[in-house]
Formats: sequence, structure tokens, C-alpha cells
Amino acid sequence: MEKTQKPSLLVVSAHAADFVWRAGGAVALYSERGYRVKVVCLSYGERGESAKMWKQPNMTLPKVKAARHEEAAKAADILGAEIAFLDIGDYPMRVSDEVLYKLVDIYRELRPEFVLSHSLHDPYNFDHPLATHVAQEARIIAQAHGHNPEQAVIGAPPVLLYEPHQPEQCNWKPDVLLDISSVWEKKKAAFETMNAQEHLWEYYTRVALQRGVQASRNSSRSIKYGEGYQRVFPQVCGEFS
Amino acid sequence: MEKTQKPSLLVVSAHAADFVWRAGGAVALYSERGYRVKVVCLSYGERGESAKMWKQPNMTLPKVKAARHEEAAKAADILGAEIAFLDIGDYPMRVSDEVLYKLVDIYRELRPEFVLSHSLHDPYNFDHPLATHVAQEARIIAQAHGHNPEQAVIGAPPVLLYEPHQPEQCNWKPDVLLDISSVWEKKKAAFETMNAQEHLWEYYTRVALQRGVQASRNSSRSIKYGEGYQRVFPQVCGEFS
Amino acid sequence: MEKTQKPSLLVVSAHAADFVWRAGGAVALYSERGYRVKVVCLSYGERGESAKMWKQPNMTLPKVKAARHEEAAKAADILGAEIAFLDIGDYPMRVSDEVLYKLVDIYRELRPEFVLSHSLHDPYNFDHPLATHVAQEARIIAQAHGHNPEQAVIGAPPVLLYEPHQPEQCNWKPDVLLDISSVWEKKKAAFETMNAQEHLWEYYTRVALQRGVQASRNSSRSIKYGEGYQRVFPQVCGEFS
Amino acid sequence: MEKTQKPSLLVVSAHAADFVWRAGGAVALYSERGYRVKVVCLSYGERGESAKMWKQPNMTLPKVKAARHEEAAKAADILGAEIAFLDIGDYPMRVSDEVLYKLVDIYRELRPEFVLSHSLHDPYNFDHPLATHVAQEARIIAQAHGHNPEQAVIGAPPVLLYEPHQPEQCNWKPDVLLDISSVWEKKKAAFETMNAQEHLWEYYTRVALQRGVQASRNSSRSIKYGEGYQRVFPQVCGEFS
Amino acid sequence: MEKTQKPSLLVVSAHAADFVWRAGGAVALYSERGYRVKVVCLSYGERGESAKMWKQPNMTLPKVKAARHEEAAKAADILGAEIAFLDIGDYPMRVSDEVLYKLVDIYRELRPEFVLSHSLHDPYNFDHPLATHVAQEARIIAQAHGHNPEQAVIGAPPVLLYEPHQPEQCNWKPDVLLDISSVWEKKKAAFETMNAQEHLWEYYTRVALQRGVQASRNSSRSIKYGEGYQRVFPQVCGEFS
Amino acid sequence: MEKTQKPSLLVVSAHAADFVWRAGGAVALYSERGYRVKVVCLSYGERGESAKMWKQPNMTLPKVKAARHEEAAKAADILGAEIAFLDIGDYPMRVSDEVLYKLVDIYRELRPEFVLSHSLHDPYNFDHPLATHVAQEARIIAQAHGHNPEQAVIGAPPVLLYEPHQPEQCNWKPDVLLDISSVWEKKKAAFETMNAQEHLWEYYTRVALQRGVQASRNSSRSIKYGEGYQRVFPQVCGEFS
Repeated sequence: MEKTQKPSLLVVSAHAADFVWRAGGAVALYSERGYRVKVVCLSYGERGESAKMWKQPNMTLPKVKAARHEEAAKAADILGAEIAFLDIGDYPMRVSDEVLYKLVDIYRELRPEFVLSHSLHDPYNFDHPLATHVAQEARIIAQAHGHNPEQAVIGAPPVLLYEPHQPEQCNWKPDVLLDISSVWEKKKAAFETMNAQEHLWEYYTRVALQRGVQASRNSSRSIKYGEGYQRVFPQVCGEFS
Repeated sequence: MEKTQKPSLLVVSAHAADFVWRAGGAVALYSERGYRVKVVCLSYGERGESAKMWKQPNMTLPKVKAARHEEAAKAADILGAEIAFLDIGDYPMRVSDEVLYKLVDIYRELRPEFVLSHSLHDPYNFDHPLATHVAQEARIIAQAHGHNPEQAVIGAPPVLLYEPHQPEQCNWKPDVLLDISSVWEKKKAAFETMNAQEHLWEYYTRVALQRGVQASRNSSRSIKYGEGYQRVFPQVCGEFS
Repeated sequence: MEKTQKPSLLVVSAHAADFVWRAGGAVALYSERGYRVKVVCLSYGERGESAKMWKQPNMTLPKVKAARHEEAAKAADILGAEIAFLDIGDYPMRVSDEVLYKLVDIYRELRPEFVLSHSLHDPYNFDHPLATHVAQEARIIAQAHGHNPEQAVIGAPPVLLYEPHQPEQCNWKPDVLLDISSVWEKKKAAFETMNAQEHLWEYYTRVALQRGVQASRNSSRSIKYGEGYQRVFPQVCGEFS
Repeated sequence: MEKTQKPSLLVVSAHAADFVWRAGGAVALYSERGYRVKVVCLSYGERGESAKMWKQPNMTLPKVKAARHEEAAKAADILGAEIAFLDIGDYPMRVSDEVLYKLVDIYRELRPEFVLSHSLHDPYNFDHPLATHVAQEARIIAQAHGHNPEQAVIGAPPVLLYEPHQPEQCNWKPDVLLDISSVWEKKKAAFETMNAQEHLWEYYTRVALQRGVQASRNSSRSIKYGEGYQRVFPQVCGEFS
Repeated sequence: MEKTQKPSLLVVSAHAADFVWRAGGAVALYSERGYRVKVVCLSYGERGESAKMWKQPNMTLPKVKAARHEEAAKAADILGAEIAFLDIGDYPMRVSDEVLYKLVDIYRELRPEFVLSHSLHDPYNFDHPLATHVAQEARIIAQAHGHNPEQAVIGAPPVLLYEPHQPEQCNWKPDVLLDISSVWEKKKAAFETMNAQEHLWEYYTRVALQRGVQASRNSSRSIKYGEGYQRVFPQVCGEFS
Repeated sequence: MEKTQKPSLLVVSAHAADFVWRAGGAVALYSERGYRVKVVCLSYGERGESAKMWKQPNMTLPKVKAARHEEAAKAADILGAEIAFLDIGDYPMRVSDEVLYKLVDIYRELRPEFVLSHSLHDPYNFDHPLATHVAQEARIIAQAHGHNPEQAVIGAPPVLLYEPHQPEQCNWKPDVLLDISSVWEKKKAAFETMNAQEHLWEYYTRVALQRGVQASRNSSRSIKYGEGYQRVFPQVCGEFS
């Protein structure tokens, strides 16, 4: 059964837009390669990451959520990913065991080859490391034979942490520089759906260009756009890369 | 010209035997794959890592060096590698600029795809991190267009640091676990040429088994023997691994 | 409206006395400069930091709290600060979302220029880093446009972490050495109200003298008494200092 | 009263078997020296660390717990320790304040000279660092004069963290290498009661041998089997050791 | 005598162009404020940082040096700084005690209020951390009363480390974000004199924009261009900033 | 032969006075216990740590050295230690291989049970970490069977790093708190011989009192004066302490 299933990638994103800025390239790349890519947004970022909308008159929480839902869904569509919204609230984010188990179910169903989430620390944003914590905890439970023992446990998919907004302040250091040049236009199109965060378009374009230069410098290839990732676990391999 | 050249791997080893215990698996793997593998031993480990020989009567420095030369050459042969001895002395090791430039020449001639050397710190052994320092410095000079400008500069080969004897005390943390099961017998045969360090045979067999278990745990594969490496630079790639 | 408001400083203290020993100098300095300084004590330190009182016969929790309330209020008065007690209990401290939101309200009302709290780690005392965590989380929520959107959000006040009791064990490293010589007598008078912790008077006098010597050493000035602070965020400036 | 009490050692183990693999040597050593050794297992490891049992048909949670209870009790008996099971569940582990206070009571009753628990970090297993967290928090509360003020508070017993499964990945570094050669046969007998985790017998035998070699290297003694521990607090002493 | 002297800023740059890309904003700012700003270039970067020139036919070391001298002098002039070239060679850089003492003399003569240099680590470039090392060592010697005792010793000028090319890989973390918006055009004009390194113009423009966004985020101000610095020593102050 | 030799302690001090302030308690304790304690001062601290003398008229390097020699010898005498001066100069300190081998000879002759030296890092003073480096390198060479093979090699004496002047800035963290209360009067008498550094008397008295309080807090004992040490290697033991 597992053999006939498409290989897959799981992205656990604290807020609706996070995955686009930070992992949109990886999502598009893997989608193009035939992977099933699933993005789980724990919240819409409705309170903390929708400043522009809240400046409009008569704004309400449901309106913000609806708008962010639409944007993120559109971005996921452009990138070739499925998207699920757990709508658990933000600023502050609180994760119940019920939500944790939903995520475990997703791991068990999806059996991802790789998992992407946020940096381990972020003094500017406590929802981000919490999302990573729950992504890791759900992964561990999905590995436990005694959890829903009638289901098959998952293996040990690598967890890769995408770049936070201010990397040095988050003690984030890239172990992997991914060449996203071939899918850059898709990533750009995806983040340009984020009307509430226009100021970030240029910021993340520059991030991609800097990581591209660095990817070139750390290899002998010419790479225009890159995304950085930090590994949680050592890479297991049969040859260096 | 570069195209027709065999791909290659460079190992910079402080003492004659270091590369066998710590990187013998990688050396054998790459040799089997058709790589040219070159080991550069900065010294014979004649003063500091030949305790057993010095317990014999009438031992002299030349005799120790000759014995260690022979052993290491034999081990390299078993593993399928070339070996060069720079004979710069050990305990303490001192590196002149002349030696540095010899190593630069080797980089320029070999154009390695990967470079292996020691951990960055080692409170038990100051020759080890010094060897890594010179391996890194030579690599940087070999990249400089103004150094012997008539030669082609090298690219940016990844540097991978093999496991020190007491990893936690050396602040060494493996980023890469390499499956060496298929070449284990060669590695074993190679280190068994080291008569002066028999006590290490079992030690490094256990190291390989532990890293094998860990490699299995960090993947979904069954891996019996492993070697751990720490990266100096981020991995550049077109897909995760 | 914001323009006519006094500038202000917020101190988030886990227990009633913490702010006096550790940040009393900063509190007095800013009060003298015309700032509104507000100290929020999450608990009275009634269970864990009132050993001397508990050695008296017939002691009860309400009596301890009352005594610590009085002492801390007196100390705040000497230092020129307002003080609020949230009385959430200590050893262990537990922070509900209700308490978190109270603190958010304080941020929104006060709009502090600087925030002071405890070190990020403390293996001797789990209430201290928890107080800092909630001080940071409340600050982040107070920045969110979607939290009570009818209120103005706050900016990004620097958070400075005062010195823990055993700094090296708490991985605390001072980034800022504040000259408190001009207000030393006030700080001393303030901590001498703490009858339950007399043994600390000399200890914190010595701390202030050591930080004073270090402040002199790191500048070309003669400074007698100092307080150390660790920054959470980078300093933003138009010139070095 | 305290004087006539036996000296004691407390081990806080997340799952039923953890203490055997990781601290079995220390437990046996202290038991032989006449200490009262008490192991507190927060859970049975019934969901996450009983893979082999769950592969049997008709397995149920109560059956797994009963089997793990029996094994751990037998191992404790071989090592000479008392054992208590708090049965709070695993994968995920959740610690209520009620459980915390139970552990505080144990501290107050036992008054241990040393406390052993897990590493502070473990990306493979979130129950382990949580067990250490609660072991530390209970110790701090047991030191508070205002907690059950009619009881005597405890002093400041050192906390020593035993070796996690993949030490470098857990940022664990041994400060102490304990010679367990004299009790090795007991430790081996104890872990051989763990039928559900046979694959670990050889793994932890190798760990003990490696730590033994390292203990020899860091001293002038010949030590065959060792266990590594990381200190939470500085060692206080009247002479070096 | 000291009183009538202009205040000054010292920049110690490994190669001719480093100070422009990384500290050009600070140099221009301080020059505009009436400071004497002195840049000391230890080498011309003639071998390692002049790739483009070496691709031209008939290039020689003297020609490269002359070109880089001219460019750097022009850049310094635009920024309002004096510049001195010690011409000690690069890739590898080697610092004699004679060179060290020259730098000590500069400290004693200049008596700088601030010192700027490279990051402490850089795996891509060993000349950079070496320049910082010698800048720090010269500063320490200039503080020693027994060195040329007839001269006045210097005080303790803060040392600020400007941003390396790949900050996370160099373990560099900004403590200070300097607003350089008002002098951006000068910095741009200065680095556009660097014909040999055109590919860096865009790179460092993006760096300045990213640090500007971050400076805005860490304050309540709108800042377009920024430079990041890491402190070596704690900031000593009479008020927070 | 080794059996009849007194046990011994080696202290490697960069400047004449360092050992007194920082390790005087340990020296006195071990001397009282019948150890042979040998202090090796690499320099007199004549240039960098004799500010007061240099303010006197007609001061010369030989006069400073003679005065510091006398003071340090007197202090060693009070503490019960032998003292040797290698007189290699300070600010900057430079260590030739000849000096290194002298230190190796001292190791081979003394066969110390413990070695004390400075912290590994010190941004205020480059001589201090250099002294530690050479102390460690000499220890390693003294362990090498091939170095003067007719002599007996030494074992693996623990190296303990005493407290630097500004501990947090030197990334120094105490692993060991030594109770020096019983020898405090000797330590005080010894450092009071240091007329050139009177300003440090009070500073180091306060250091000893703070470490005493911390030693009490980390044990259940009452300790008035303490000294802190950081271990380089793990402690090897048969029981915890």
C-alpha cells in the first residue's frame, strides 16, 4: 500500500502566510516533482499578522480570517499544494492535545518524506517555535507503536526548519541551501497574493537573492534564488552531497 | 580537461593512522565508486601515537616512522587510496608556509569534490585541529585567483569533519551519518594493519556499530555500520536528502 | 495623546523583592529623570523567597503576603516607582491567559520605552524565566493589531534582562553595564526594607561594586556602582555608544 | 532524625526502562554502599517504548503496562532499588501539578543526596526532558520554606543527567565519568530483564565500554565499564577530584 | 592636549575594500560629525579578492595592488576618511610583531573612541578574523603602561565587529543596528569605485536594505538602510538606548 | 619511585600575580595537605600589569621585573608554593618551542595530580588564554611516549581553569566551587604583598565572598570563601561528589 502512494512533503505553518515566504520554493519544487505537498496552517495569523487589514474600518475577526484563508489557499494552489487550516488562533497560540492528535493523524495518513516548519527560537514571535514544537511532538507520537496500534507507524522523516524573519536573532543557521531558481516565478506569484503583507514582497525577494549568492559561493554552481533550511537531525546517506 | 579527470576526494590526516579509524569507510566507498582518493598524512604520529613501539627496546624515531609509514601505506592500499606523507613532525605539530603551499598545490592538482579532516577542537590532541586548520587555509588559498595565477582556481568543495576520539569533549556533532556497511570488511582489514594501536580495533568497531544504529534511527533504513561527519559549510542542493 | 504622556519604564518581577536587588538602580535613575516607572510583581515570593518569615511561629500564607506586600511597596516608593501585585502564586508559578492579558493591558496603557525582566534561564528558580516569558509574550500580543483593535498597538520597546543570582549558571552575560552610582543610596535604602532577606544586602552590594569596577574597565570613566543587563534584541541607534 | 536516616539517591525516569540502561550502574553502586535508592518512573513507556509488544496480536494498553511494570520492578530488584510508578502516560507525557506535588513529597521524605534524571534536550523524545524538568521543579519546591511549612525543607542535592540515546544530538556532554566496572554484571542482568527492548542490550553494552575507555583516558586508571553524567550545578568541594 | 584633539574612529580592514562594503555607512556618519576617521588596510586583497583583475591578460601583483590602492583611496575620500595601507600580503595573511607595533602606534596616536573590525570567525576567509585578532591585540598593548612608557596609554574604546559576507556561518550576530540612511548615497558612491567587485554592489545594497527593515522592526522608527555590528565588550552607559 | 614522591599541583600563571588572586586558595589548601605545589610564571606582567609602578619616575623594565619577582616570590612563600619565573615577556606574550619544552620538562619531573591555569578565552587579555594553551600543549607532549622516550610519560592530570577578571565576558562558567575558608587568611596575606595592584585587594575579596555564598547555595554547607574553577576534561570517579 505504501508503495503505490505518492511520496509527500508536510509543511507545518503557524500562520496562513508563513509557508509562502519561507518555504514556497521547496513546496513548488516538490509539487513539480510529483510529490503530494500538504500545508497545515495552525492559524490564519488573524490577530498578529494582518496589520493592514485591521487598519480598515469595521474590520472583524471573521472577515480577517476569511481573507487570509482565501489568500493562503490561492498561494497554495499556485505552488501546487493542498492546504488545511486548523484555526486554533494566534497571538497567543495555544495547542490542545486534540489539535496535536489531529496533526498525528495527518502524519499517519500522509507518511511524509520530509517535514518543514519554523525555527526553534524566535524572540519576536512565540507562535513560530510553538508550531515547530507541535510538529515535532506529533511526529514523535506518530512513530509510537502504542498510539492507535492498528495503524502503521511512520519512519523518521527529516525535519527542516525554514528561515525566520531575523535569522541571527533566532539562533537559526542554515545547514542546507536549496536552489529554487527554477520555481522562483511561482513563489513570487504565490506571495504576491498576500495583499495584507505587501511590504514583505521585496524583503523576501532579497532574502532569496542573498541565499542564491550564498548557494553559489558554497558550491561551484551558479544559483540565482535560494532558500535556507536548518536540519534538526543528522542527514543519513550513502554518499556525501 | 577537468571533465576528463576522475572525480576525487582529499583526506588531510594529522597522523599516519587517523584517516583509517575515522574515515576509512568513506575512503573505501569513494574508491569503489571510481574516485581518485588521496590521503595526505602531515606526520607519522611517531612521537605521540606510537606508544606500543616506544615500549620496545632500542627504538628510534626513524624506526618508528618507517613502521608507521608501512602500516599506513598498506591500509591506504586496502582502502584503494593514494597516500602522501609530508613528515612535518608531531607532538607538537608545526606548519610552515612551505608545507601550506604544498597542500595548496595538491588542491590545485587534485581539484577534490570533497575534503575530509579532523574536528575543529580537541583538548586531548592539538595536532588534530591544526591539521584541519591548514586543510581549510590551503583550500582558501587554492581558491584565490592571485595565487599562481596561471593555474585554474578550485571551486568550493565541502569540508566534512570526521569523528574525534571523544566526540562530546571536542564539541563535535555529526551532521551526516554515512552508511559504510558495504565496505566494512575493507575498513576492518585496513585498521587491523595498525599493530601499534590494537587497543583501538574494538573501540572503532563499536563506534561504527553505534553510528550504524543511529543512522538507522534517523532514517527508515537498516544500516549496520556508519561513520559520522560534521559539515563546515551548508549543503547546497536541488532537493532535500 | 501619546506625546503628552510621560515616558515610562516597565519592570516585570516574578517575586515581590526581585526588582529591588536586581534593577533598583535603573528604577531610581529613570524615576529621577521624570519617567513613570511601573513594577509588576507577579507574586509575593511568599512560598519560596520568604524563608526567614516561615521560621517564625504561627506563620500563615496571608501574613507572609501582607508583609512582603508592605516591604515591596515601601521599596518601590523609595525608588520612585508605582507597583502592582498580580498575586498569582509562586513555587511553582503558573500563568493563566487571563493574567497574560492583564499584562497586555498594562503594556497598552503604559506604552513603555524599555522593559526589564529576569534572565532567560535559571536552574535554581523556574519562576524567574517564566516571568520573562510572560513579559515577552504580553509584549508581542500588545504589538498585534488584531488584539483589541480599537486600542493603539505598541512599538518595539527593548527588553533588558537584569542579573540573576548566579549569573554564569544561568547563561546570562551582560551586554549593558549601567552606572547607578548617583542613585546608589536610594537602591540601598530600598533593599534594606527587605527584612526577610537581610543576608542578601551584602551580597547585592558586592554585586553592584563588581559591576562598577567592570563598568570602569570597559570605559574610560570612574564608576563606583553598576547594574548589568542582557539585551534580548539588537540596539537600534544613529551613533555608537 | 535526619542523622539516623540512610543516605539516599533519587532517580526520576520518564519511562519504565530508562533508568536501567542509563543509570543502572550508579543505582547498583549506591545500593551496594548502603544507600536507599528510589526510582520514580513517571510512565511505563507503554505507548512509545514497547514496540515489540505491540507487534503481538491482541495487545492492549493494560497488558503492556503490566508487562513493563513487572520487568522494571525486576530490574530494580536486581539493582537493589525501590521503584514507584506514577503511571501518568507517555507519548505525549503531561504532568499535572498533582503529580508534581507527589514528587515534592518524595523529595521531602527521601531527602536524597543526589538526583539522577534525563538530558535537558532530546529532539527524538519529548518525554525525557519533561521528566527532567519536573524533577528539577519538584526539587525547587521541596526547598521552599512556604511549601508545607510544617515539613523540613531539603538542601541542594546535585542533579546529574544520564546519557541520552544519541548524546551529541541532545547537546549532552559528560562532566562525570563513573566507574561502574564492579557492578557491571548487575547492570547487565538488570537490562536483560527488558525483553521488549532486546535490541538495546548490545547498544548499551557498547556505550558502557566506550565510556570505560574514555574514563581510563581521562584518568590514570584502568576502567572497563563507565557511565557518563552531565552536571546541572557546579560541584562544591573541599578538594579537587 | 587630548581635549583639543578631534574625536576619532579607527577601522582595521583586512583587505582594501572590506571597510567600504561593511562599515562605509559608519565611516561616512562619523566623518560628517567631525570625527577623524582612519582606515588601516592590512593588505590590498591583491591575491584573494581581485578575481576580476586576474582574469585580464598580463596581470601582475604590482598592477593589482596599484589598482586596489587607487580604488580604496578614492572610496575613503568619498566617505571622508584617511586611509593607510600596511601592505602585509593576503591569502594567507601573516602578521609580524613589527606590524602589530605599528598598529599600536596608531592607537596611541589616534586614541580612537570606537574601533571597527571583522567578525571573530569566518570559515571562508582566514584573513578577516586575523585582522580582528591583531586589532584587538594592538588595542590591549596600547593600554599597557609598560609599552613605551613615555606615551599616554589609551582607555578602553569599544570594538564593534561589522557584518561578514555570510553572517550565520561566521557565528556573527548583530547587537547594534546603525541607521545609515542619511549617508547611504555616499556609501553607494564609495563602493561603486570598486570595479573589481561589481557583483557585490547589489549584494551589499540588499544587505543594507535588510538591516534597515530589521532596524525599523527593532525600534519604532522608519529606517531605510542599516549596518549591523556585534559588540566585543559590554556597553557602558548612564541610560539605556 | 613515583610512589615515594610527594603528590603535587602545578599552576601555570601568565603573569607574576595571577595565581595569587585567582588560585591562591587552592595553592594554600594543597600546600597544607602536604602537596608539593609549583607555580610557573611565564612572565612578570611587567609591561601590562604593573601600571602603578610605571607611574613612578625613572622606572625601567628591570626595576619593574625585580619588584614583581620579589612580590610574587613572597606571595608564593606565604602560600607554601615553589615558584619559577620563565621571563618570556608580556603584552604581547610569545611562546617559543624552547619554552614549551621547558614546561614539558616540568610536567615530567613534577608529575602533577592537578594543573591550574587561566580561562580559555579573554578578550581583555590575550596572554591569559595563551598561557593556558601552552599549559595544555606541554601536558599533551609530556604524555607522548616518543618525547624523550627514556623518561616516564605522565598520566592525564585534570586541568582546572581559575576565574578570569570578568567571567561572563570570557565565557567562563564554574564547574567546581572550592571551599577556601580555612586558608583565607593566607590568601589575603599573599595578595596583600602585591603593592602594585592594591585596587584588586577588595575586588578579589568580594569575588571570594560571592563564590562562598554560591558554594553554600549549591550544597547544604555553610561556606564563607570560595574559588571557582572550570574543568577542561570530565571528572572520573567511583562515586558522585
